[in-house]
Amino acid sequence: MGCSETDAVSAADVLLLADLRGIDSHGVARLTGYVRLWENKRINVGPNITIVHQTPTTATVDGDAGLGLVVAPFAMRLAIQKAGQYGSGWVSVRNSNHFGIAAYHALMAVEKNMIGFAMTNASPLVAPTFSSERLLGTNPMCYAFPAGRYAPVVVDMATSAAANGKLEIAQRLGKQVPEGWIQDAAGNYTTDPHALKNGGSLLPLGSDYEHGSHKGFGLSATVDILSGVLSGANYGPWVPPFVAFLDPPADPVGSGIGHFVGAMRVDGFRPVGEFKSHLDNWITRFKSAATIDPAKKVIIPGEPEMEAEAERKAGGIPIGDAVLNDLNSLAAKFGITRL
Amino acid sequence: MGCSETDAVSAADVLLLADLRGIDSHGVARLTGYVRLWENKRINVGPNITIVHQTPTTATVDGDAGLGLVVAPFAMRLAIQKAGQYGSGWVSVRNSNHFGIAAYHALMAVEKNMIGFAMTNASPLVAPTFSSERLLGTNPMCYAFPAGRYAPVVVDMATSAAANGKLEIAQRLGKQVPEGWIQDAAGNYTTDPHALKNGGSLLPLGSDYEHGSHKGFGLSATVDILSGVLSGANYGPWVPPFVAFLDPPADPVGSGIGHFVGAMRVDGFRPVGEFKSHLDNWITRFKSAATIDPAKKVIIPGEPEMEAEAERKAGGIPIGDAVLNDLNSLAAKFGITRL
Repeated sequence: MGCSETDAVSAADVLLLADLRGIDSHGVARLTGYVRLWENKRINVGPNITIVHQTPTTATVDGDAGLGLVVAPFAMRLAIQKAGQYGSGWVSVRNSNHFGIAAYHALMAVEKNMIGFAMTNASPLVAPTFSSERLLGTNPMCYAFPAGRYAPVVVDMATSAAANGKLEIAQRLGKQVPEGWIQDAAGNYTTDPHALKNGGSLLPLGSDYEHGSHKGFGLSATVDILSGVLSGANYGPWVPPFVAFLDPPADPVGSGIGHFVGAMRVDGFRPVGEFKSHLDNWITRFKSAATIDPAKKVIIPGEPEMEAEAERKAGGIPIGDAVLNDLNSLAAKFGITRL
Repeated sequence: MGCSETDAVSAADVLLLADLRGIDSHGVARLTGYVRLWENKRINVGPNITIVHQTPTTATVDGDAGLGLVVAPFAMRLAIQKAGQYGSGWVSVRNSNHFGIAAYHALMAVEKNMIGFAMTNASPLVAPTFSSERLLGTNPMCYAFPAGRYAPVVVDMATSAAANGKLEIAQRLGKQVPEGWIQDAAGNYTTDPHALKNGGSLLPLGSDYEHGSHKGFGLSATVDILSGVLSGANYGPWVPPFVAFLDPPADPVGSGIGHFVGAMRVDGFRPVGEFKSHLDNWITRFKSAATIDPAKKVIIPGEPEMEAEAERKAGGIPIGDAVLNDLNSLAAKFGITRL
């Protein structure tokens, strides 16, 4: 596509970690989507990423329409540098694109014995409580904490009841989805995974008002405000779609999509060894919790991804035929060796 | 009780705002509970609140077993001071007690054109996904943003599907609660609001795994780690109970309960006027969203509390007989004029 070597390696690293951690929907399977956005001139492969405003511990970065896979690590490096100097660093990003898995960015901080934060807004698929309109993305938030003898605790979650990837799986398998994931265009609950394509919406975490969907809406709003309103990116229904076949809104309220990342030094609060030893104790206690079904253990946030990573580092990453064919089409297009 | 005049006024201010905002469960109705904890020597009315560790933008505060209503505002003032100087400020607090409504503390930042963050851990009532044990509090998180012509956006939410206060209401009315709020001691769903007293648990936001309760668990874990593990307070099942008739765990892993508060200057990212004007635009768009039922509007986070505040500032705060009797018992105990 014309990315610099450095940017290409940086972007590939983000996609690879998604595949390693078992988040196949955010790995190399997305490469074709990024290429299509580039073909539609919606991704700038040679961005001049700039810091447009800053204080010692805050900054706004303009991604110059670059790949989020390159822009977000730039922002996170800046946050980590500020945290190294002043204890914490916070960067809001505008004029960016899809940044891959949030955990990649948050884990950059964890490697430095910092607590990592990463969130992004996304094109509208989710309806606020009581509404039939899609006004928010699945807007993920991620918090990552360094542990001692355990893997980091990584909370990386869409703020909707179900992520879009789960719907796509149900669509492919021709299966119904549980009530509480989606509503149809009129706002009625439905179990038809195709309802989303026909004007329906995903539901916020909590699913309905009685079960706290206004909280999921509130979390999604928080991500949108920190990522979009604070940075000068688009927000709410104005966030441009990730898919190239849908045009961005004609009346943007900002530039591209927005992210928000941050880092805090653990030793800004207490010695790293003390924190890690207590987080280990926390993990040990929760892992040994009494369970309802003896076959099901309490899952520490980030544990399944860590297990996938260990397994795939040893045994390789399985690639389905559809993804393989996509990658080989890309190889043909760019004149490189097919897999 | 022997609080200094300053501390008494500060604590009363926190309780009063809860009552003004319609959060009756966290207002003067709690006064008797605080007095009982003091009688059990679990609240220090003359605390020497200290900063035990700090960098330019981070700090750990030891509340010396003081009222959270006094300790948390101390921590928030410190966060705001750091943010004023360096762009952001973050304070983790140990050795504290119940801090009232999270929104009070976050709104202290909003008054300074900052974004406010406040969270606290709490005594265990919530079971992690798949577990039958109560290991987490309802651990609220609050994010508050200053708007222009609208009231601030205030996301202030327990990370459980339902707050404990809603259960207490159902108990008093002898009503069943919706499935998805609580489980019994064996981990079976139940609609009996008394199940919690008999060894049952509240469920994390999301209610069950299929609907994302692991996300609610992850959010609650985040609050617990930032408030407890980071500060040196107790965490998880070791957090001491708020009620005086239950003893704290005999094997504490830290001091008292923990909070985490923070502030970020809006103008650390973009001019305040620009931010407020876009947040106003965000609010206007969401308020005008198409709704499923024409009688139900999309509720902006913080809007119901703001409406209650306007109403109660004009018409007064209704106090029920039970609370009035409690307050009059306290008046008798302390030899002051009854209401």
